[in-house]
Amino acid sequence: MINYDDKYLKRGASASKSEVHSAIKNTDKGIFPGAFCKIIEDRLGNDPEYCNIMHADGAGTKSSLAYIYYKETGSISVFKGIAQDSLIMNVDDVIAVGATSNILFSNTIGRNKHIIPGEIIAEIISGYNEVLKMLNDNGIEIHSCGGETADVGDLVKTIIIDSTLTARMKRSDVINNDNIIPGDVIIGLASYGRASYEKHYNSGMGSNGLTSARHDLFTKIYMEKYPESYADKTPTEYVYCGKYNLSDGFGHGGLSVGQAVLSPTRTYAPIIKKIFDTIGRKNIHGIVHNSGGGQVKCRSFGRGIHYIKDSIIEIPPLFELIKNSTRTDYPEMFQVFNMGCRMEIILPESFAHEIIDIAKSFRVEAKIVGRIEKNPHSNIKNKVTITDPNGKRIVY
Amino acid sequence: MINYDDKYLKRGASASKSEVHSAIKNTDKGIFPGAFCKIIEDRLGNDPEYCNIMHADGAGTKSSLAYIYYKETGSISVFKGIAQDSLIMNVDDVIAVGATSNILFSNTIGRNKHIIPGEIIAEIISGYNEVLKMLNDNGIEIHSCGGETADVGDLVKTIIIDSTLTARMKRSDVINNDNIIPGDVIIGLASYGRASYEKHYNSGMGSNGLTSARHDLFTKIYMEKYPESYADKTPTEYVYCGKYNLSDGFGHGGLSVGQAVLSPTRTYAPIIKKIFDTIGRKNIHGIVHNSGGGQVKCRSFGRGIHYIKDSIIEIPPLFELIKNSTRTDYPEMFQVFNMGCRMEIILPESFAHEIIDIAKSFRVEAKIVGRIEKNPHSNIKNKVTITDPNGKRIVY
Repeated sequence: MINYDDKYLKRGASASKSEVHSAIKNTDKGIFPGAFCKIIEDRLGNDPEYCNIMHADGAGTKSSLAYIYYKETGSISVFKGIAQDSLIMNVDDVIAVGATSNILFSNTIGRNKHIIPGEIIAEIISGYNEVLKMLNDNGIEIHSCGGETADVGDLVKTIIIDSTLTARMKRSDVINNDNIIPGDVIIGLASYGRASYEKHYNSGMGSNGLTSARHDLFTKIYMEKYPESYADKTPTEYVYCGKYNLSDGFGHGGLSVGQAVLSPTRTYAPIIKKIFDTIGRKNIHGIVHNSGGGQVKCRSFGRGIHYIKDSIIEIPPLFELIKNSTRTDYPEMFQVFNMGCRMEIILPESFAHEIIDIAKSFRVEAKIVGRIEKNPHSNIKNKVTITDPNGKRIVY
Repeated sequence: MINYDDKYLKRGASASKSEVHSAIKNTDKGIFPGAFCKIIEDRLGNDPEYCNIMHADGAGTKSSLAYIYYKETGSISVFKGIAQDSLIMNVDDVIAVGATSNILFSNTIGRNKHIIPGEIIAEIISGYNEVLKMLNDNGIEIHSCGGETADVGDLVKTIIIDSTLTARMKRSDVINNDNIIPGDVIIGLASYGRASYEKHYNSGMGSNGLTSARHDLFTKIYMEKYPESYADKTPTEYVYCGKYNLSDGFGHGGLSVGQAVLSPTRTYAPIIKKIFDTIGRKNIHGIVHNSGGGQVKCRSFGRGIHYIKDSIIEIPPLFELIKNSTRTDYPEMFQVFNMGCRMEIILPESFAHEIIDIAKSFRVEAKIVGRIEKNPHSNIKNKVTITDPNGKRIVY
């Protein structure tokens, strides 16, 4: 088995972000320290009943793969998906604290003008507008304020695409993961398939673990052909050491392996909005967006909680492909990738049926994947146990 | 004379951003289309008397020079200045529309973990906090919401540092450059010297034109030593083709040439806030932040306006050094660099004396640099005439 942390380091990336967490360890945690995003007082409106969220994230190294795909196929439309990745990584974070309206959006693009033409910038902006329209059609009110495109070829090898959202909401509407209690169940929502609001089959990829997935799946051909697509200092044995070409068949949804890895990050916002409107926010004890940290993300929320996931959603083909290509074990895989479930809702079991029905009305698979118990070993620290497809219990 | 546009292109950057402007040409211009920043309805509070601004910008390729400085000296404190650059490029844009309070801040950092250690991330965050404190001490209320640091060595050669601000303000408080009228005067505020709220002499650099300044000033030594500091595809004759080492004496403010180019972008916010409080916003017809586009930035504001600058602030040593090193003429220099004046206030002459006194109370040089006339050739397009230090009139 390859050590994932080591591989990440050798590739100029990281899985754990421990250094970053250390750098911000003294930062104020806001007024709902247990919530999924940092929430502060209503500095924008000075109303004690309201609060503010400002949240930034991006498409990460997925844009490097989009660049190769564009060079290989000549198609720039792949960058619309990257715009969606960059936007949804934020939308699904703020929806996890309950923000569904009064949201502003802005973006930054840093590009190397040597190799990224203006048409790609136009395609990204068009991609943002399409996703914003779909969200607005589904009741998620996000208003675009434009953004900044900087030509910074001395900094950026290809293109980097980040987004920021600002939301103002009622404090009483906040989903606060501090409310997660023993006895709750965990509803998992599938990250793959084709939701009613999606145009194509979605592999479930999301925008995390892309540095690993790219290098572990694709062949050395791309190392020679596209030195601009990876860090100079990465030892060559860690660069594109997989066996696939982008155009190889994936066998699901009519996609190639390249297209599968580039599947735009699914948003769960239309489903969560419908859940809020149907069963009410008060009944929801917690929402966890399985982004960085994968299915172990939940460990950061609640106090003295044991998350027991003993009936996970079936792992979709892409993650099995990555697992097999990289000879990575399940304990590592669940910490890096969403493994087919990028959103979890935690609440009393009595609401489970209704939530599953709502998800299915959007053609998104959902089920009770586990339950909450008290952590027998600590009143403060949390514990996660995942039963893998072989029936083995993995403890984090 | 070297063609600047061509040099920019060869370096993977651009001076005019024409492609970007073309990509966003159909974008909605907001509710004050003449203002310095895009302003939209109050989507955050739904109050017809209020409006919102969300604005993104960054330190650009200045961080690449900071990286070299850090490698040469071992000092990470230079990155505090880069945090200031990234923040102030936004603060001084939103202050130009009148936003002084109810402002949120967030940031994104993309780094190559191969070469940028965690201490630098901590230094940047600390730099942000110091500048935010200084601004708050001067009555500019900006609240930090944290940010996102991504380890993206496959995308970013060294480090890219961007910021975003969100402001909510009264529409009646907006400075709208559409109010600029013939008969107004232009007050210029110096970008160099040492303001009362600055710790060191400031060269006036700001955060624009850094790709040119870096390559045109510094020697080929850095090409060999730091290939990670410039775009791979830049022809070698355009890479670090100057005659200076970073440590060479600059002769002003006790700085080296490297330190001079790395001078953190001055903010004018404390001065502008004082001006608002003293003479009132209603009396100010326009504010122009001379960022990208340099002293020709004003051309984008007003209708049928002729900006006549016939008494500019003395050009500080750094820009003369850049000019001489690059054999660039004044017409190009004024379009790329602020040339010693990064902020202009446009209003009736009767208020000029008071504004100049306020600036001087902060130890910032200020003077009437010119006046507004009607453009004799168009009711729509604007014209800029700058009299250079040789008495030659440059028409844009």
